Amino acid sequence: MIMSRIEAPRDEVTGNLLDRLRDGLPAEAVLTDPDVTASYANDMASFCAAGAPAVVVLPRTVEQVQHVMRTATALRVPVVPQGARTGLSGAANASDGCIVLSLTKMDRILEINPVDRIAVVEPGVINATLSRAVNEHGLYYPPDPSSWETCTIGGNIGTASGGLCCVKYGVTAEYVLGLDVVLADGRLLSTGRRTAKGVAGYDLTRLFVGSEGSLGIVVRAILALKPQPPQQLVLAAEFASAAAACEAVCRIMDGGHVPSLLELMDRTTVKAVNEMTHMGLPESTEALLLAAFDTADPAADLAAVGALCEAAGATQVVPADDAAESELLLQARRLSLPALEATAGTTMIDDVCVPRSKLGEMIEGVERIAEKYRLTIGVCAHAGDGNTHPVVCFDAQDPDESRRARESFDEIMGLGLELGGTITGEHGVGILKKEWLAREIGPVGVEMQRAVKHVFDPLGILNPGKLF
Amino acid sequence: MIMSRIEAPRDEVTGNLLDRLRDGLPAEAVLTDPDVTASYANDMASFCAAGAPAVVVLPRTVEQVQHVMRTATALRVPVVPQGARTGLSGAANASDGCIVLSLTKMDRILEINPVDRIAVVEPGVINATLSRAVNEHGLYYPPDPSSWETCTIGGNIGTASGGLCCVKYGVTAEYVLGLDVVLADGRLLSTGRRTAKGVAGYDLTRLFVGSEGSLGIVVRAILALKPQPPQQLVLAAEFASAAAACEAVCRIMDGGHVPSLLELMDRTTVKAVNEMTHMGLPESTEALLLAAFDTADPAADLAAVGALCEAAGATQVVPADDAAESELLLQARRLSLPALEATAGTTMIDDVCVPRSKLGEMIEGVERIAEKYRLTIGVCAHAGDGNTHPVVCFDAQDPDESRRARESFDEIMGLGLELGGTITGEHGVGILKKEWLAREIGPVGVEMQRAVKHVFDPLGILNPGKLF
Repeated sequence: MIMSRIEAPRDEVTGNLLDRLRDGLPAEAVLTDPDVTASYANDMASFCAAGAPAVVVLPRTVEQVQHVMRTATALRVPVVPQGARTGLSGAANASDGCIVLSLTKMDRILEINPVDRIAVVEPGVINATLSRAVNEHGLYYPPDPSSWETCTIGGNIGTASGGLCCVKYGVTAEYVLGLDVVLADGRLLSTGRRTAKGVAGYDLTRLFVGSEGSLGIVVRAILALKPQPPQQLVLAAEFASAAAACEAVCRIMDGGHVPSLLELMDRTTVKAVNEMTHMGLPESTEALLLAAFDTADPAADLAAVGALCEAAGATQVVPADDAAESELLLQARRLSLPALEATAGTTMIDDVCVPRSKLGEMIEGVERIAEKYRLTIGVCAHAGDGNTHPVVCFDAQDPDESRRARESFDEIMGLGLELGGTITGEHGVGILKKEWLAREIGPVGVEMQRAVKHVFDPLGILNPGKLF
Repeated sequence: MIMSRIEAPRDEVTGNLLDRLRDGLPAEAVLTDPDVTASYANDMASFCAAGAPAVVVLPRTVEQVQHVMRTATALRVPVVPQGARTGLSGAANASDGCIVLSLTKMDRILEINPVDRIAVVEPGVINATLSRAVNEHGLYYPPDPSSWETCTIGGNIGTASGGLCCVKYGVTAEYVLGLDVVLADGRLLSTGRRTAKGVAGYDLTRLFVGSEGSLGIVVRAILALKPQPPQQLVLAAEFASAAAACEAVCRIMDGGHVPSLLELMDRTTVKAVNEMTHMGLPESTEALLLAAFDTADPAADLAAVGALCEAAGATQVVPADDAAESELLLQARRLSLPALEATAGTTMIDDVCVPRSKLGEMIEGVERIAEKYRLTIGVCAHAGDGNTHPVVCFDAQDPDESRRARESFDEIMGLGLELGGTITGEHGVGILKKEWLAREIGPVGVEMQRAVKHVFDPLGILNPGKLF
């Protein structure tokens, strides 16, 4: 790593910081070339400010992370922990003069235990790497954010990531049994357990999950695994309106079905995917619903759900014949965001989750907002969870359109709250939504959350400027 | 409520407390007769000290709970929240001069929503009442502690209760989406959400679950529900040793099966159940394993699991023919603790959970401990979770036997920790295990947990003397 030796002109403060960091880190784990450090400044969120890191560190051991945190505490330097920076809320964005603490080199799978159905991993393990490794033992690690081929387990824990599987299998939080966390002052805290159950003391594990690196640095995780389910089979149903598709969602859930996936793509999204992939999805439809089952008899479940879709007004219901066809439909859904990004100049991806009984109202409301602000807003949704991703498309060079984009983005969150929902179903608060967090959780909520933050980070050096 | 008007001789402090409580509570909600208040002093734990409450209050509204907490804060009086007092760790035991805050009168089911699959309830709702109410909507609230016919949802939340269903459906914590909590100073905090997903801020909901009333008073809960599964079918397998039964458990879990119940009863337990019920369970067996499936084809699943039991050395495998036979077997398991209690003079029920791969070592270790201390220790276990309930039987009138009982009880926890387990799988810490909590979570854990406690309860009035 020659690059790390090309140093920026260093002032005394930074010089002292670098010297002390190098006391406990190998030379190649301390990056200071400004071109290099600048490349660590951002995650994938739009509209989020990022500063210039003083240094990027890439520790490989728990002791090295402890050394970094002890140094940061001693010198009162802010620390921004990072995984693969695939986040969508700016939670991993650097602040000026910070230490970027990248956990990507701590990427070992330490244990996979099929009887206990657990895996023990370091935070830098890629989600897909873990998924494939546990598959070889007949096991399944469900959380599957769209970025699963590149995102890290540590990042998933930091943001409590979701994915397509959540309607049946829940989010990352539900798979974290225990954590090793390096605290702000460098001490090591172990939380949770490696047992199936356990209630010894407060559940600090869950406090760290979704805390966006603002309470401590996760250096090891004990994860719960499921047995690998049968291959899922997917059905596609076309609707003449988003309202009818949402009605189908309600009937499916009310009917007691447990799909392994229940996704919605609106016409804008379908067209964008077709433009990108030439998949030939039906563009005449206003809403495409994808449902899947990974049960013993998925064809029977799809038939039952297909009938419910027809009863709700589906104009066409097409069950996939086999795994290959199913995979193609999933691929279409997974490409929704990239496809919308490709068609638009710039996009802002919202992440509002409402009670699923309100999904229809939510999507109609987004249509009204798009009209009001004269913008294209494509909607894809984890419909079974009521988790919508309205994608606001705009030209970032046009100040008026940019302003309208930001306003519509906010109005979508306001609508979500009005409908009893949350401003973020799975992407987190970060920088992007911190003004909105207080609107959701109220003044008492903010006060208690800030007080909890202060317990773990009395100097305010852990990912400052995020969440609150 | 005439009783509440017969008052204990009141000193000035208590008089002031009662006057202020009555300012915001109806007369019948304030109990002061010492015979009556004494009846609220204990939960169902052995060996846990209980003091004499100054008063028992039975609020019916959130505002009344807020009034109680404001009063307690103003006068610095400790508050002990209570549900049905079926707990097994002394977490609901009164301390001298405290306000016992019984939530049993706040017992309304406020909402059941089959599309959103949620219920909104007050804390005093009985678990069985909720279970039956949601069943009528085709829904299922899984957590089923043994005391489910009498225990309250608030108590279940306070202790993060488990039950027989956990091997497939998890514990209470996994069903709590959001809470309304009255804080120590009387303010109302809302946590969580009513949506399927949500990551707005720190997960304070889970912090309250299992906190044994030491952080705030839960006055409303939003609970997740599942669709009602098919009726489960149960199989009983007899083994010539507990080790062989544990081997079967490992093979079942390693084989990717998802039983809805996987329970173990040792010979002592089987004999006790027979004595109580004349059920005619096989007494020649050293260990009886019960497995159940609530799948689409439970008979097929039972056949597969039965074969694994035989491969692990089962001497006999008997699948139930129908729901009635299944229910009888479940009844036997549910009666294990009462039956052991009936045969012994006094019992102490331990609750050590180990990784399920260590279950055999755990049970063998308990046998060694029983021998060492010359005591009968029956073991029943949520085997699929590795959660053992060794029941130490002894004569409380015999000081030496009582001492040996207490020592063996502790040694069982020590063994659990050695095997990578936890001192409590589902019963909680309360008073009974507070010396052991520190051994499990270590000094950094204790320090951080105490600091979190201080955030929510700076005056230390919420259930003092529990957990730490």
